[in-house]
Amino acid sequence: MKDLIGGPGTVNGMVLRIGQSAFAAASIFVMVTTVGFYRYTAFCFLIASMGLQVLWSFGLTCLDIYALRKKRDLQNPVLVSLFVVGDWVTATLSLAASCASAGVVVLFARDIGNCKDAYLHSCRGFQISVGFAFIAWALIAMSSHVMFWMLASV
Amino acid sequence: MKDLIGGPGTVNGMVLRIGQSAFAAASIFVMVTTVGFYRYTAFCFLIASMGLQVLWSFGLTCLDIYALRKKRDLQNPVLVSLFVVGDWVTATLSLAASCASAGVVVLFARDIGNCKDAYLHSCRGFQISVGFAFIAWALIAMSSHVMFWMLASV
Repeated sequence: MKDLIGGPGTVNGMVLRIGQSAFAAASIFVMVTTVGFYRYTAFCFLIASMGLQVLWSFGLTCLDIYALRKKRDLQNPVLVSLFVVGDWVTATLSLAASCASAGVVVLFARDIGNCKDAYLHSCRGFQISVGFAFIAWALIAMSSHVMFWMLASV
Repeated sequence: MKDLIGGPGTVNGMVLRIGQSAFAAASIFVMVTTVGFYRYTAFCFLIASMGLQVLWSFGLTCLDIYALRKKRDLQNPVLVSLFVVGDWVTATLSLAASCASAGVVVLFARDIGNCKDAYLHSCRGFQISVGFAFIAWALIAMSSHVMFWMLASV
């Protein structure tokens, strides 16, 4: 199995996982502190999807820390297959939720001009939360491509 | 290079490409025949993204037909790298556009209840168009995974 930057049980891989968890958690935090988010299905889906992302990435961060401390090798085909499936599911869900929320935010901000005066604060919150979600997706996309490449190049 | 189902220059690959073009074209057709779509950025983005999908998939359909008729081999690393990049860009854009549009459709249909009486016909159109876009995305996702696997397993 090729040794790639960002693979499981490496320092780069762990940094990627920490970034994913941090940005997903930040996205949830900003969304739940924004007034009226629960009225919109897309934003609830974003919270659920980012919640799953935090659980998955935080779990793998702990596994990476364990592997680095105990000098265990996580790069065997069975484990990498498991990481590939989990990474692709969470990456697809994260992109789907980010885009659905971005669609609604753009609708509010541009199409129906709902982001003026009283709603301004909420709109900012939605926009920042969606921005964090996109960063979390970009990081999980990197991890999932590395894992898929490792599995395919066995 | 491994010979995979759905690879370039094969009958399965050609069928996948025809499916992608057909569903993307159907999505555009339903959307442009629906009243008032141009007022929403997400739906315009869907048309642009599905347009790109049609161009890309139709171009590769022609290439597959040419390769099958002339018995040419398209499975060399340089060509497959090109297919991988194009497939991933179009697949990501298709998913993004489908999800953004789905977010707006769900907002209309469930959250603000805008899909009653006068707007019913438009809502149906938006829903059908987004459905076709998701099928087109599922087919391009298959192609892009096959291509990526082929490239990684060189």
